[in-house]
Amino acid sequence: MTMDNVFPALNDRLALHVLTDRDWSRGRSTVEVARAAIDGGATVIQLRDKYANMHTLIEEGKALRKLTRQRNVLLIVNDRVDVALAIEADGVHVGQHDMPGELARKLIGPERILGISAGSMDEAIAAIAAGADYLGVGPIFATQGKSDAGAPIGLELLSELKRRYTTPLIAIGGINAENAGAIIRAGATGIAVITAVVNALDIAEATRVLANALTV
Amino acid sequence: MTMDNVFPALNDRLALHVLTDRDWSRGRSTVEVARAAIDGGATVIQLRDKYANMHTLIEEGKALRKLTRQRNVLLIVNDRVDVALAIEADGVHVGQHDMPGELARKLIGPERILGISAGSMDEAIAAIAAGADYLGVGPIFATQGKSDAGAPIGLELLSELKRRYTTPLIAIGGINAENAGAIIRAGATGIAVITAVVNALDIAEATRVLANALTV
Repeated sequence: MTMDNVFPALNDRLALHVLTDRDWSRGRSTVEVARAAIDGGATVIQLRDKYANMHTLIEEGKALRKLTRQRNVLLIVNDRVDVALAIEADGVHVGQHDMPGELARKLIGPERILGISAGSMDEAIAAIAAGADYLGVGPIFATQGKSDAGAPIGLELLSELKRRYTTPLIAIGGINAENAGAIIRAGATGIAVITAVVNALDIAEATRVLANALTV
Repeated sequence: MTMDNVFPALNDRLALHVLTDRDWSRGRSTVEVARAAIDGGATVIQLRDKYANMHTLIEEGKALRKLTRQRNVLLIVNDRVDVALAIEADGVHVGQHDMPGELARKLIGPERILGISAGSMDEAIAAIAAGADYLGVGPIFATQGKSDAGAPIGLELLSELKRRYTTPLIAIGGINAENAGAIIRAGATGIAVITAVVNALDIAEATRVLANALTV
Protein backbone atom coordinates (compact mmCIF):
# COMPACT_ATOMS: atom_id res chain seq x y z
CA MET A 1 0.00 0.00 0.00
CA THR A 2 1.40 3.34 -1.02
CA MET A 3 1.52 5.44 2.11
CA ASP A 4 2.19 8.82 0.50
CA ASN A 5 -1.35 10.08 0.22
CA VAL A 6 -3.37 7.84 2.46
CA PHE A 7 -1.09 8.01 5.46
CA PRO A 8 -3.36 9.88 7.89
CA ALA A 9 -6.42 8.09 6.57
CA LEU A 10 -4.77 4.70 6.99
CA ASN A 11 -3.68 5.62 10.49
CA ASP A 12 -7.28 6.39 11.42
CA ARG A 13 -8.45 3.13 9.92
CA LEU A 14 -5.85 1.18 11.91
CA ALA A 15 -6.99 2.53 15.28
CA LEU A 16 -8.76 -0.49 16.72
CA HIS A 17 -7.96 -4.02 15.60
CA VAL A 18 -10.05 -6.86 16.87
CA LEU A 19 -8.47 -10.28 16.35
CA THR A 20 -10.86 -13.19 16.18
CA ASP A 21 -10.29 -16.15 18.44
CA ARG A 22 -12.72 -19.00 18.53
CA ASP A 23 -11.45 -20.38 21.85
CA TRP A 24 -12.27 -17.17 23.70
CA SER A 25 -15.56 -16.30 22.02
CA ARG A 26 -17.98 -18.09 24.36
CA GLY A 27 -19.34 -20.18 21.52
CA ARG A 28 -20.28 -17.20 19.36
CA SER A 29 -19.37 -17.42 15.70
CA THR A 30 -16.51 -15.43 14.23
CA VAL A 31 -18.91 -13.38 12.12
CA GLU A 32 -21.19 -12.70 15.09
CA VAL A 33 -18.20 -11.52 17.13
CA ALA A 34 -16.93 -9.36 14.28
CA ARG A 35 -20.33 -7.76 13.69
CA ALA A 36 -20.69 -6.76 17.33
CA ALA A 37 -17.11 -5.49 17.43
CA ILE A 38 -17.77 -3.32 14.36
CA ASP A 39 -20.96 -2.06 16.02
CA GLY A 40 -18.76 -0.95 18.90
CA GLY A 41 -16.19 0.80 16.72
CA ALA A 42 -13.60 -1.76 15.58
CA THR A 43 -11.80 -0.42 12.50
CA VAL A 44 -9.98 -3.63 11.59
CA ILE A 45 -11.06 -7.24 11.87
CA GLN A 46 -8.17 -9.65 11.80
CA LEU A 47 -9.16 -13.21 11.02
CA ARG A 48 -7.01 -15.41 13.20
CA ASP A 49 -7.90 -19.04 13.59
CA LYS A 50 -4.94 -21.34 13.98
CA TYR A 51 -7.03 -24.48 14.35
CA ALA A 52 -9.88 -24.16 11.86
CA ASN A 53 -9.72 -26.44 8.88
CA MET A 54 -9.26 -24.63 5.61
CA HIS A 55 -12.89 -24.87 4.53
CA THR A 56 -14.07 -23.24 7.73
CA LEU A 57 -11.41 -20.58 7.42
CA ILE A 58 -12.41 -19.78 3.84
CA GLU A 59 -16.11 -19.70 4.71
CA GLU A 60 -15.47 -17.47 7.72
CA GLY A 61 -13.22 -15.32 5.60
CA LYS A 62 -15.80 -14.87 2.88
CA ALA A 63 -18.49 -13.97 5.40
CA LEU A 64 -16.15 -11.48 7.07
CA ARG A 65 -15.24 -10.03 3.70
CA LYS A 66 -18.89 -9.34 2.96
CA LEU A 67 -19.50 -7.87 6.41
CA THR A 68 -16.39 -5.68 6.45
CA ARG A 69 -17.10 -4.35 2.95
CA GLN A 70 -20.63 -3.43 3.99
CA ARG A 71 -19.36 -1.68 7.09
CA ASN A 72 -16.25 -0.10 5.51
CA VAL A 73 -13.94 -1.83 7.95
CA LEU A 74 -10.57 -3.34 7.04
CA LEU A 75 -10.18 -7.11 6.91
CA ILE A 76 -6.76 -8.56 7.56
CA VAL A 77 -5.90 -12.26 7.63
CA ASN A 78 -3.40 -13.59 10.12
CA ASP A 79 -0.57 -15.77 8.83
CA ARG A 80 -2.21 -17.39 5.76
CA VAL A 81 -1.26 -15.27 2.78
CA ASP A 82 -3.12 -17.67 0.48
CA VAL A 83 -6.35 -17.23 2.43
CA ALA A 84 -5.91 -13.46 2.38
CA LEU A 85 -5.59 -13.56 -1.40
CA ALA A 86 -8.40 -16.09 -1.83
CA ILE A 87 -10.97 -14.04 0.09
CA GLU A 88 -9.62 -10.71 -1.22
CA ALA A 89 -8.79 -9.39 2.20
CA ASP A 90 -7.36 -5.91 2.56
CA GLY A 91 -4.16 -7.30 3.96
CA VAL A 92 -2.25 -9.93 5.82
CA HIS A 93 -0.51 -9.94 9.17
CA VAL A 94 2.55 -12.11 9.61
CA GLY A 95 4.26 -12.95 12.87
CA GLN A 96 7.91 -13.73 13.39
CA HIS A 97 7.17 -17.43 12.90
CA ASP A 98 5.04 -16.96 9.78
CA MET A 99 6.10 -16.28 6.22
CA PRO A 100 8.93 -13.72 6.04
CA GLY A 101 7.65 -10.22 5.33
CA GLU A 102 9.51 -9.83 2.02
CA LEU A 103 7.86 -12.94 0.61
CA ALA A 104 4.45 -11.97 1.94
CA ARG A 105 4.83 -8.57 0.29
CA LYS A 106 5.83 -10.20 -2.98
CA LEU A 107 2.71 -12.37 -2.91
CA ILE A 108 0.19 -9.74 -1.88
CA GLY A 109 1.58 -7.01 -4.14
CA PRO A 110 2.06 -3.34 -3.33
CA GLU A 111 -1.60 -2.46 -2.73
CA ARG A 112 -2.66 -4.76 0.07
CA ILE A 113 -1.73 -3.97 3.65
CA LEU A 114 1.17 -5.87 5.21
CA GLY A 115 1.37 -6.01 8.99
CA ILE A 116 4.37 -7.57 10.69
CA SER A 117 4.81 -8.41 14.37
CA ALA A 118 7.80 -6.95 16.15
CA GLY A 119 8.85 -7.52 19.75
CA SER A 120 12.22 -5.78 19.59
CA MET A 121 13.96 -2.94 17.76
CA ASP A 122 15.80 -5.42 15.52
CA GLU A 123 12.56 -7.10 14.51
CA ALA A 124 10.95 -3.72 13.93
CA ILE A 125 13.77 -2.51 11.69
CA ALA A 126 13.66 -5.74 9.70
CA ALA A 127 9.88 -5.47 9.38
CA ILE A 128 10.07 -1.91 8.11
CA ALA A 129 12.78 -2.91 5.65
CA ALA A 130 10.55 -5.78 4.48
CA GLY A 131 7.85 -3.29 3.57
CA ALA A 132 5.51 -3.42 6.55
CA ASP A 133 2.58 -0.97 6.34
CA TYR A 134 2.23 -1.24 10.09
CA LEU A 135 4.00 -2.99 12.92
CA GLY A 136 2.23 -5.11 15.50
CA VAL A 137 4.26 -4.18 18.55
CA GLY A 138 4.10 -6.36 21.63
CA PRO A 139 3.26 -8.06 23.77
CA ILE A 140 3.07 -4.76 25.66
CA PHE A 141 1.62 -6.35 28.79
CA ALA A 142 1.01 -9.94 29.87
CA THR A 143 -1.69 -11.55 27.77
CA GLN A 144 -3.88 -14.60 27.92
CA GLY A 145 -5.11 -14.39 24.33
CA LYS A 146 -1.97 -15.62 22.64
CA SER A 147 -0.43 -18.72 24.14
CA ASP A 148 2.75 -18.25 22.09
CA ALA A 149 3.35 -14.64 23.09
CA GLY A 150 6.72 -13.83 24.64
CA ALA A 151 7.47 -11.84 27.79
CA PRO A 152 5.85 -8.39 28.01
CA ILE A 153 8.00 -5.59 26.62
CA GLY A 154 6.26 -2.56 28.09
CA LEU A 155 5.94 0.85 26.45
CA GLU A 156 9.58 1.65 25.74
CA LEU A 157 9.81 0.10 22.27
CA LEU A 158 6.67 1.95 21.18
CA SER A 159 8.15 5.29 22.21
CA GLU A 160 11.49 4.57 20.62
CA LEU A 161 9.88 3.46 17.35
CA LYS A 162 7.60 6.48 17.32
CA ARG A 163 10.63 8.70 17.74
CA ARG A 164 12.54 7.05 14.89
CA TYR A 165 9.97 5.99 12.29
CA THR A 166 6.68 6.99 10.69
CA THR A 167 5.37 3.45 10.26
CA PRO A 168 2.06 3.04 12.13
CA LEU A 169 2.50 1.15 15.38
CA ILE A 170 -0.28 -1.11 16.58
CA ALA A 171 0.20 -2.15 20.17
CA ILE A 172 -0.89 -5.65 21.20
CA GLY A 173 -0.86 -7.69 24.39
CA GLY A 174 -2.90 -7.22 27.55
CA ILE A 175 -4.49 -3.99 26.40
CA ASN A 176 -7.70 -2.81 28.05
CA ALA A 177 -9.66 0.40 28.54
CA GLU A 178 -7.53 1.30 31.58
CA ASN A 179 -4.15 1.19 29.85
CA ALA A 180 -5.15 2.08 26.27
CA GLY A 181 -4.68 5.80 26.81
CA ALA A 182 -1.15 5.38 28.11
CA ILE A 183 -0.33 3.21 25.10
CA ILE A 184 -1.49 5.86 22.66
CA ARG A 185 0.40 8.53 24.58
CA ALA A 186 3.51 6.33 24.42
CA GLY A 187 3.38 6.46 20.64
CA ALA A 188 0.96 3.81 19.38
CA THR A 189 -1.16 4.58 16.34
CA GLY A 190 -3.72 2.07 17.47
CA ILE A 191 -4.29 -1.05 19.48
CA ALA A 192 -5.08 -4.68 18.79
CA VAL A 193 -7.11 -6.75 21.21
CA ILE A 194 -8.32 -10.30 21.44
CA THR A 195 -9.87 -11.38 24.73
CA ALA A 196 -10.75 -7.82 25.85
CA VAL A 197 -13.35 -7.90 23.09
CA VAL A 198 -14.09 -11.45 21.97
CA ASN A 199 -14.40 -12.78 25.51
CA ALA A 200 -16.63 -9.91 26.69
CA LEU A 201 -20.26 -10.67 27.49
CA ASP A 202 -21.25 -7.52 25.59
CA ILE A 203 -18.81 -7.33 22.69
CA ALA A 204 -20.13 -4.09 21.21
CA GLU A 205 -20.00 -2.32 24.57
CA ALA A 206 -16.51 -3.63 25.36
CA THR A 207 -15.31 -2.36 21.98
CA ARG A 208 -17.00 1.01 22.50
CA VAL A 209 -15.23 1.48 25.82
CA LEU A 210 -11.88 0.69 24.18
CA ALA A 211 -12.61 3.02 21.26
CA ASN A 212 -13.40 5.84 23.68
CA ALA A 213 -10.22 5.17 25.62
CA LEU A 214 -8.21 5.78 22.43
CA THR A 215 -9.37 9.37 22.05
CA VAL A 216 -7.09 10.69 24.74
CA MET B 1 -1.22 -25.64 -17.01
CA THR B 2 -2.53 -25.93 -20.55
CA MET B 3 -2.74 -29.60 -21.30
CA ASP B 4 -3.21 -29.40 -25.06
CA ASN B 5 0.36 -29.74 -26.17
CA VAL B 6 2.20 -30.99 -23.15
CA PHE B 7 -0.18 -33.76 -22.26
CA PRO B 8 2.02 -36.76 -22.97
CA ALA B 9 5.06 -34.94 -21.66
CA LEU B 10 3.29 -33.99 -18.46
CA ASN B 11 2.08 -37.54 -18.01
CA ASP B 12 5.65 -38.80 -18.21
CA ARG B 13 6.78 -36.18 -15.77
CA LEU B 14 4.07 -37.21 -13.29
CA ALA B 15 5.09 -40.87 -13.18
CA LEU B 16 6.72 -41.09 -9.78
CA HIS B 17 5.87 -38.65 -7.00
CA VAL B 18 7.85 -38.78 -3.79
CA LEU B 19 6.19 -36.93 -0.92
CA THR B 20 8.51 -35.72 1.78
CA ASP B 21 7.76 -36.61 5.36
CA ARG B 22 10.11 -35.66 8.11
CA ASP B 23 8.68 -38.15 10.63
CA TRP B 24 9.51 -41.14 8.41
CA SER B 25 12.87 -40.00 7.10
CA ARG B 26 15.13 -41.53 9.75
CA GLY B 27 16.57 -38.13 10.63
CA ARG B 28 17.67 -37.35 7.09
CA SER B 29 16.92 -33.85 5.83
CA THR B 30 14.17 -33.20 3.33
CA VAL B 31 16.70 -32.11 0.72
CA GLU B 32 18.88 -35.17 1.34
CA VAL B 33 15.85 -37.43 0.93
CA ALA B 34 14.75 -35.61 -2.23
CA ARG B 35 18.20 -35.77 -3.79
CA ALA B 36 18.44 -39.52 -3.28
CA ALA B 37 14.88 -40.01 -4.57
CA ILE B 38 15.75 -38.06 -7.71
CA ASP B 39 18.89 -40.16 -8.11
CA GLY B 40 16.61 -43.17 -8.10
CA GLY B 41 14.18 -41.80 -10.67
CA ALA B 42 11.57 -39.68 -8.85
CA THR B 43 9.94 -37.30 -11.36
CA VAL B 44 8.07 -35.17 -8.82
CA ILE B 45 9.05 -34.05 -5.35
CA GLN B 46 6.08 -32.97 -3.28
CA LEU B 47 7.02 -30.90 -0.25
CA ARG B 48 4.73 -32.00 2.53
CA ASP B 49 5.50 -30.95 6.06
CA LYS B 50 2.45 -30.34 8.22
CA TYR B 51 4.44 -29.52 11.33
CA ALA B 52 7.39 -27.43 10.19
CA ASN B 53 7.30 -23.79 11.12
CA MET B 54 7.03 -21.47 8.17
CA HIS B 55 10.68 -20.47 8.13
CA THR B 56 11.78 -24.09 7.92
CA LEU B 57 9.21 -24.78 5.23
CA ILE B 58 10.37 -21.82 3.15
CA GLU B 59 14.02 -22.74 3.58
CA GLU B 60 13.33 -26.38 2.65
CA GLY B 61 11.24 -25.20 -0.24
CA LYS B 62 13.93 -22.93 -1.60
CA ALA B 63 16.54 -25.67 -1.33
CA LEU B 64 14.20 -28.13 -3.07
CA ARG B 65 13.46 -25.56 -5.76
CA LYS B 66 17.15 -25.24 -6.52
CA LEU B 67 17.66 -29.01 -6.53
CA THR B 68 14.62 -29.82 -8.66
CA ARG B 69 15.50 -27.12 -11.21
CA GLN B 70 19.02 -28.53 -11.50
CA ARG B 71 17.67 -32.03 -11.98
CA ASN B 72 14.69 -31.09 -14.16
CA VAL B 73 12.21 -32.62 -11.72
CA LEU B 74 8.85 -31.10 -10.83
CA LEU B 75 8.38 -29.52 -7.43
CA ILE B 76 4.89 -29.45 -5.96
CA VAL B 77 3.93 -28.06 -2.57
CA ASN B 78 1.28 -29.76 -0.47
CA ASP B 79 -1.54 -27.62 0.92
CA ARG B 80 0.16 -24.21 1.28
CA VAL B 81 -0.59 -22.28 -1.86
CA ASP B 82 1.28 -19.29 -0.47
CA VAL B 83 4.44 -21.35 0.03
CA ALA B 84 4.10 -22.76 -3.49
CA LEU B 85 3.96 -19.21 -4.87
CA ALA B 86 6.70 -17.93 -2.60
CA ILE B 87 9.24 -20.56 -3.64
CA GLU B 88 8.05 -20.60 -7.26
CA ALA B 89 7.11 -24.24 -7.19
CA ASP B 90 5.76 -25.89 -10.33
CA GLY B 91 2.47 -26.53 -8.63
CA VAL B 92 0.41 -27.19 -5.57
CA HIS B 93 -1.46 -30.22 -4.33
CA VAL B 94 -4.60 -29.71 -2.27
CA GLY B 95 -6.47 -32.36 -0.33
CA GLN B 96 -10.16 -32.40 0.45
CA HIS B 97 -9.49 -30.54 3.71
CA ASP B 98 -7.24 -27.92 2.13
CA MET B 99 -8.12 -24.87 0.09
CA PRO B 100 -10.86 -25.60 -2.45
CA GLY B 101 -9.46 -26.35 -5.91
CA GLU B 102 -11.17 -23.39 -7.61
CA LEU B 103 -9.55 -20.93 -5.21
CA ALA B 104 -6.17 -22.63 -5.46
CA ARG B 105 -6.39 -22.42 -9.25
CA LYS B 106 -7.30 -18.76 -9.05
CA LEU B 107 -4.25 -18.06 -6.89
CA ILE B 108 -1.69 -20.11 -8.83
CA GLY B 109 -2.94 -19.04 -12.26
CA PRO B 110 -3.33 -21.21 -15.34
CA GLU B 111 0.31 -22.20 -15.78
CA ARG B 112 1.19 -23.92 -12.54
CA ILE B 113 0.14 -27.50 -11.91
CA LEU B 114 -2.86 -28.10 -9.68
CA GLY B 115 -3.23 -31.54 -8.11
CA ILE B 116 -6.34 -32.40 -6.11
CA SER B 117 -6.94 -35.46 -3.94
CA ALA B 118 -9.98 -37.59 -4.71
CA GLY B 119 -11.19 -40.64 -2.83
CA SER B 120 -14.49 -41.06 -4.63
CA MET B 121 -16.09 -40.46 -8.02
CA ASP B 122 -17.89 -37.37 -6.69
CA GLU B 123 -14.66 -35.87 -5.40
CA ALA B 124 -12.94 -36.70 -8.67
CA ILE B 125 -15.63 -35.03 -10.78
CA ALA B 126 -15.53 -31.93 -8.57
CA ALA B 127 -11.73 -31.86 -8.79
CA ILE B 128 -11.77 -32.07 -12.57
CA ALA B 129 -14.40 -29.33 -12.70
CA ALA B 130 -12.21 -27.20 -10.43
CA GLY B 131 -9.41 -27.41 -12.96
CA ALA B 132 -7.18 -30.18 -11.59
CA ASP B 133 -4.20 -31.01 -13.81
CA TYR B 134 -4.01 -34.38 -12.09
CA LEU B 135 -5.93 -36.25 -9.45
CA GLY B 136 -4.31 -37.84 -6.43
CA VAL B 137 -6.44 -40.97 -6.20
CA GLY B 138 -6.50 -42.96 -2.99
CA PRO B 139 -5.78 -44.27 -0.55
CA ILE B 140 -5.57 -47.31 -2.86
CA PHE B 141 -4.29 -49.63 -0.12
CA ALA B 142 -3.83 -49.23 3.62
CA THR B 143 -1.09 -46.75 4.41
CA GLN B 144 1.02 -45.76 7.37
CA GLY B 145 2.41 -42.59 5.82
CA LYS B 146 -0.70 -40.44 6.20
CA SER B 147 -2.39 -40.57 9.57
CA ASP B 148 -5.46 -38.77 8.21
CA ALA B 149 -6.00 -41.09 5.25
CA GLY B 150 -9.41 -42.72 4.94
CA ALA B 151 -10.24 -46.39 4.31
CA PRO B 152 -8.54 -47.99 1.29
CA ILE B 153 -10.57 -47.74 -1.92
CA GLY B 154 -8.78 -50.34 -4.06
CA LEU B 155 -8.34 -50.14 -7.83
CA GLU B 156 -11.92 -49.70 -8.99
CA LEU B 157 -12.04 -45.89 -8.92
CA LEU B 158 -8.81 -45.70 -10.91
CA SER B 159 -10.25 -47.91 -13.64
CA GLU B 160 -13.54 -46.06 -13.74
CA LEU B 161 -11.83 -42.66 -13.91
CA LYS B 162 -9.46 -43.88 -16.62
CA ARG B 163 -12.46 -45.03 -18.65
CA ARG B 164 -14.28 -41.71 -18.30
CA TYR B 165 -11.63 -38.97 -18.21
CA THR B 166 -8.26 -37.98 -19.62
CA THR B 167 -7.02 -36.24 -16.46
CA PRO B 168 -3.82 -37.91 -15.25
CA LEU B 169 -4.43 -40.16 -12.25
CA ILE B 170 -1.76 -40.46 -9.60
CA ALA B 171 -2.41 -43.36 -7.26
CA ILE B 172 -1.45 -42.99 -3.62
CA GLY B 173 -1.68 -45.11 -0.50
CA GLY B 174 0.23 -48.26 0.38
CA ILE B 175 1.97 -48.51 -2.98
CA ASN B 176 5.13 -50.57 -3.30
CA ALA B 177 7.16 -52.33 -5.97
CA GLU B 178 4.94 -55.42 -5.72
CA ASN B 179 1.62 -53.69 -6.42
CA ALA B 180 2.78 -50.76 -8.59
CA GLY B 181 2.41 -52.72 -11.84
CA ALA B 182 -1.20 -53.63 -11.07
CA ILE B 183 -1.95 -49.99 -10.28
CA ILE B 184 -0.62 -48.80 -13.62
CA ARG B 185 -2.54 -51.56 -15.42
CA ALA B 186 -5.69 -50.47 -13.58
CA GLY B 187 -5.39 -47.03 -15.14
CA ALA B 188 -3.00 -44.92 -13.10
CA THR B 189 -0.72 -42.47 -14.90
CA GLY B 190 1.72 -42.61 -12.05
CA ILE B 191 2.14 -43.28 -8.37
CA ALA B 192 2.86 -41.25 -5.27
CA VAL B 193 4.72 -42.72 -2.34
CA ILE B 194 5.84 -41.60 1.06
CA THR B 195 7.21 -44.26 3.39
CA ALA B 196 8.15 -46.69 0.59
CA VAL B 197 10.85 -44.18 -0.30
CA VAL B 198 11.55 -41.80 2.56
CA ASN B 199 11.68 -44.56 5.18
CA ALA B 200 13.94 -46.81 3.07
CA LEU B 201 17.50 -47.35 4.22
CA ASP B 202 18.65 -46.86 0.63
CA ILE B 203 16.33 -44.21 -0.77
CA ALA B 204 17.81 -44.12 -4.28
CA GLU B 205 17.59 -47.89 -4.61
CA ALA B 206 14.03 -48.01 -3.24
CA THR B 207 13.00 -45.36 -5.76
CA ARG B 208 14.76 -47.22 -8.59
CA VAL B 209 12.88 -50.42 -7.81
CA LEU B 210 9.58 -48.50 -7.86
CA ALA B 211 10.48 -46.73 -11.11
CA ASN B 212 11.24 -50.05 -12.73
CA ALA B 213 7.96 -51.51 -11.49
CA LEU B 214 6.10 -48.75 -13.37
CA THR B 215 7.41 -49.80 -16.76
CA VAL B 216 5.06 -52.76 -17.04
